[in-house]
Amino acid sequence: MRRPQVEPPPSATGLAGPVRIYEVGARDGLQNEQTLVPAETKAELVRRLVDAGLETIEVTSFVSPRWVPQLADAEEVITLLGPLGLGHQRPVLTPNERGLDRALALGVSSVAIFGSATETFAQKNLASTVDGQMAMFEPVVRRAKDAGAWVRGYLSMCFGDPWEGEVPVERVASVARRLVDLGVDELSIGDTIGVGTPGHVVRVLEALHDKGIGVETVAVHFHDTYGQALANSLEAIRHGVRVVDSSAGGLGGCPYARSATGNLATEDLVWALEGLGIETGVDLSKLVATSAWMAEQLGRTSASRVVRALSQPE
Amino acid sequence: MRRPQVEPPPSATGLAGPVRIYEVGARDGLQNEQTLVPAETKAELVRRLVDAGLETIEVTSFVSPRWVPQLADAEEVITLLGPLGLGHQRPVLTPNERGLDRALALGVSSVAIFGSATETFAQKNLASTVDGQMAMFEPVVRRAKDAGAWVRGYLSMCFGDPWEGEVPVERVASVARRLVDLGVDELSIGDTIGVGTPGHVVRVLEALHDKGIGVETVAVHFHDTYGQALANSLEAIRHGVRVVDSSAGGLGGCPYARSATGNLATEDLVWALEGLGIETGVDLSKLVATSAWMAEQLGRTSASRVVRALSQPE
Repeated sequence: MRRPQVEPPPSATGLAGPVRIYEVGARDGLQNEQTLVPAETKAELVRRLVDAGLETIEVTSFVSPRWVPQLADAEEVITLLGPLGLGHQRPVLTPNERGLDRALALGVSSVAIFGSATETFAQKNLASTVDGQMAMFEPVVRRAKDAGAWVRGYLSMCFGDPWEGEVPVERVASVARRLVDLGVDELSIGDTIGVGTPGHVVRVLEALHDKGIGVETVAVHFHDTYGQALANSLEAIRHGVRVVDSSAGGLGGCPYARSATGNLATEDLVWALEGLGIETGVDLSKLVATSAWMAEQLGRTSASRVVRALSQPE
Repeated sequence: MRRPQVEPPPSATGLAGPVRIYEVGARDGLQNEQTLVPAETKAELVRRLVDAGLETIEVTSFVSPRWVPQLADAEEVITLLGPLGLGHQRPVLTPNERGLDRALALGVSSVAIFGSATETFAQKNLASTVDGQMAMFEPVVRRAKDAGAWVRGYLSMCFGDPWEGEVPVERVASVARRLVDLGVDELSIGDTIGVGTPGHVVRVLEALHDKGIGVETVAVHFHDTYGQALANSLEAIRHGVRVVDSSAGGLGGCPYARSATGNLATEDLVWALEGLGIETGVDLSKLVATSAWMAEQLGRTSASRVVRALSQPE
């Protein structure tokens, strides 16, 4: 089935382009799989994503293999990709200076750090505090910028925390402000456990704005745990956000947060954006084929509804 | 995990209440199950939905058992429910005069007819034409109204047709106009194969408006085949629609339309509406327990993401 070619009325919906998709499946997605995926399969996933028209692809993470064994092959993946794995459109996660050193040694020029808006998750994920993570990130961001790299800051648990419950928007904004003050070029606001709703999205964006962080600096990162990810992403776009994180085939989640199931599926986002006349540059049928292939490698069905619908036998 | 209690900004989102949920799981959902569910289980589902706070519940369908064997027990379900199965808030589907006779004989006072916006689906679903279905519905609506019943008209394939492809919004509006002219009290616009996107929703509502059908007469019925159902429903609400069809646990689909998977899950809709401060009267934990129970009866996992997240072992 093809998506109907209805002329969209952007003025009527408030939704207008362009939107940049920040593809997280290769890193955020695969790091949460139980299966250990071979480095060559990871590299092939990135190659296929590039071929499907995704411009910005987070490739891997230079986290300690003791923390996330799934990512112990970061060097190998980058090396297998060659030039295709480098450049400003191929960020990698560098949680600390050791990770940054490893990334820079390979010629990486785009990095991301991953912080928490809440104390409990800073403890669970980084064995640190909110202050402690800022102290850890400061030299990473400074040295990355000195090396000419582009830097993204992820902020997780911005809409709720499985241990703390509610997370006040003012708190989110003040931790976000500290990340921006460190010098990050882009701030990705994450609903790590997927509990947010569109009104909440607007409140968070307002709180960020009140701290001087405009939508031009903000990306959004929603999980579909409660089925809200697409509606929340569209709400953010409606309010001016122009970078949306998503994961091919809905790969991923968070192993340290209960009930944190998959990311927003890139295919479901692309379906919506195309229907709204918002250009993404993505070839949906190639992307669906990629996610169907990846699901086969993982031995399970894709979490993306578009992938399931379009890869059914005709 | 509880949904965060963030004060919603309805002015910022354009979303404001109240919204009436038209629960279709007991009819539209179960009619599409392969499993033959016992009448007592169907009646128990309705009782539990009532207990969970759903006000409007479509109970069953008086279709010929030759067409849909899953619904051969319509009389039995209504009889088992007693007064709980009757009244203006307990519509039943009456595809033709024979079905209407059976329903009226039991004291039913709220009925629905189910038409198609396209010729191909009128043929596949009713072995008729668009004109033919109107001729068939005319005496059903007239006699139902004469008997004092409330009448809903479903219009399916309003956003795309698996055989015809695109369905022009003007065509949808003109077939809708004919249903309204027959005297239906409410018109439910269905995206039977789930291909629509928010801009398309606005176009359909505009086309209906141009034919003199205002949002106060319109309900929307979205399927989640491509993950768009919640975003589309919220878009319709944003444009003034106040009745949204959904199915507890995401039960249902359409057996005659390829790729037509589940309805919008009531739980996922309630999660969004509660987050937006829109009252639904639904007790979400009771509803989740109901859908988890129903999934157990059917021997499978619920399609609702909220049900899956909230019925996980803690």
